[in-house]
Amino acid sequence: MGQPRTLKLTLAYDGSRYVGWQRQASGDSVQGLLENALAHFEGAPVHVHGAGRTDAGVHALGQVASVRVHAAHDAHTLLRALNAQLPRDVRVLRVDEVADDFHARYSAVAKTYRYRIWNGPVGNPFEAPFAWHVREALDVEAMQAAAALVVGTHDFSAFQSTGSDVATSVRTIVRSDLRLVSAAGGALPRDGSTRGAAFVCEPVLVYEVAGDGFLRHMVRAIVGTLVEVGRGWRSPASMAALVAGAPRASAGATAPPAGLFLVAVDYDEALAP
Amino acid sequence: MGQPRTLKLTLAYDGSRYVGWQRQASGDSVQGLLENALAHFEGAPVHVHGAGRTDAGVHALGQVASVRVHAAHDAHTLLRALNAQLPRDVRVLRVDEVADDFHARYSAVAKTYRYRIWNGPVGNPFEAPFAWHVREALDVEAMQAAAALVVGTHDFSAFQSTGSDVATSVRTIVRSDLRLVSAAGGALPRDGSTRGAAFVCEPVLVYEVAGDGFLRHMVRAIVGTLVEVGRGWRSPASMAALVAGAPRASAGATAPPAGLFLVAVDYDEALAP
Repeated sequence: MGQPRTLKLTLAYDGSRYVGWQRQASGDSVQGLLENALAHFEGAPVHVHGAGRTDAGVHALGQVASVRVHAAHDAHTLLRALNAQLPRDVRVLRVDEVADDFHARYSAVAKTYRYRIWNGPVGNPFEAPFAWHVREALDVEAMQAAAALVVGTHDFSAFQSTGSDVATSVRTIVRSDLRLVSAAGGALPRDGSTRGAAFVCEPVLVYEVAGDGFLRHMVRAIVGTLVEVGRGWRSPASMAALVAGAPRASAGATAPPAGLFLVAVDYDEALAP
Repeated sequence: MGQPRTLKLTLAYDGSRYVGWQRQASGDSVQGLLENALAHFEGAPVHVHGAGRTDAGVHALGQVASVRVHAAHDAHTLLRALNAQLPRDVRVLRVDEVADDFHARYSAVAKTYRYRIWNGPVGNPFEAPFAWHVREALDVEAMQAAAALVVGTHDFSAFQSTGSDVATSVRTIVRSDLRLVSAAGGALPRDGSTRGAAFVCEPVLVYEVAGDGFLRHMVRAIVGTLVEVGRGWRSPASMAALVAGAPRASAGATAPPAGLFLVAVDYDEALAP
């Protein structure tokens, strides 16, 4: 056993098979898998803190977890050993030794999420776990105008799951944009080939949002509302009233979890030793 | 019930959950799912013929099946109804009415397969079902030189699973090339974003091969051999001897199924009515 130290773990996972990040009474959680793998080296139970509590079916490209360990393995050894223990749909991308006051959740200063919408007439089997399939044509320009209105410091009550218990529903969003990309740069076949290119011309909508914090289901509720704008059920301008503290019922439905990715978590670099 | 007619179905599927195309004594097969869905409209058992018998874990972007039905539904109605019945990892992309002598397997004149290799140091959870993870750096130019030697009419005994029972192991390959693509155009994140871009710079190798027919496990055995060339275990030129009727043991190992896609099946257009 070495000196106690704090590690920052950066993870990617396909959330399809999991009950979410957080340990639950039953079912596999990413936190549970990671704690079990770490306990193997530590020889004792460990508790990891995650930056974002991704729900069942939500994915991560850059989830961050912090953990206090005594195990003396260097970071590279630990990374390989953890990946050898973990199922292949959960990967540790980085292990960094950080200052003892680092906490994956409380030290975070910003997070970025991405939400993907598969907008072809027929569902793409390779996109099904990674995108929301919306069959109908969407007014992308209207959605982009609405997305832009999310930027700023607003009261996001309209996009918070009912029953949430947080001190404030005010958050600052620094980026909120929607891009239309071709599946050629997205879905399989995704290699520039035009042979057998069943899905190559289908549109994929990619929404990306970054801010200092997000309420429970906030990104999915924003996306559900943007899709209602894209369907012509709401005006783009109506978004302005929604981000001014409107009640949950006034915004759109919550989009399904499969399209959502926790892309990155930012920290104040001064916290690293 | 209408007049009997022959339908050509074009399908895409994620093969991860299936025992393969073909019905087996146990486990779900794509053929079984499709036959069950069709029987629902036909009111009687139906038998579908597939162009290629993809193995467990192998995917399709353009598998073709033929079936004789009496159901009078038009093609578009049938497409939507079948997709409503099928799980979302199996999609019917097209339904075409064809001449009665059309047979998905025997009428095929060419097939195209693709094989994907994820060549980063850490596995990508989003690529795990869709690519072979080869951790070590590969000599891509050597692999490309070896791949080019596959083109032509050759005896592919060296790349045929032992125990196969076919009249001849001679096949004509019209295309065999390997491309190095960046994961930015491939894996998630696959939308041009550089934020949280854990996997964006990792190489993906894409092998594409087209020919008049393929022996059992032939593409995967070619890929296994190409990777041994890329590792420096074999010279690129050694491929020439292998495609001249060498025994199976002289070629490389069979690559895992998850990286393989049946991309397209070509038919003599004159067969369509």
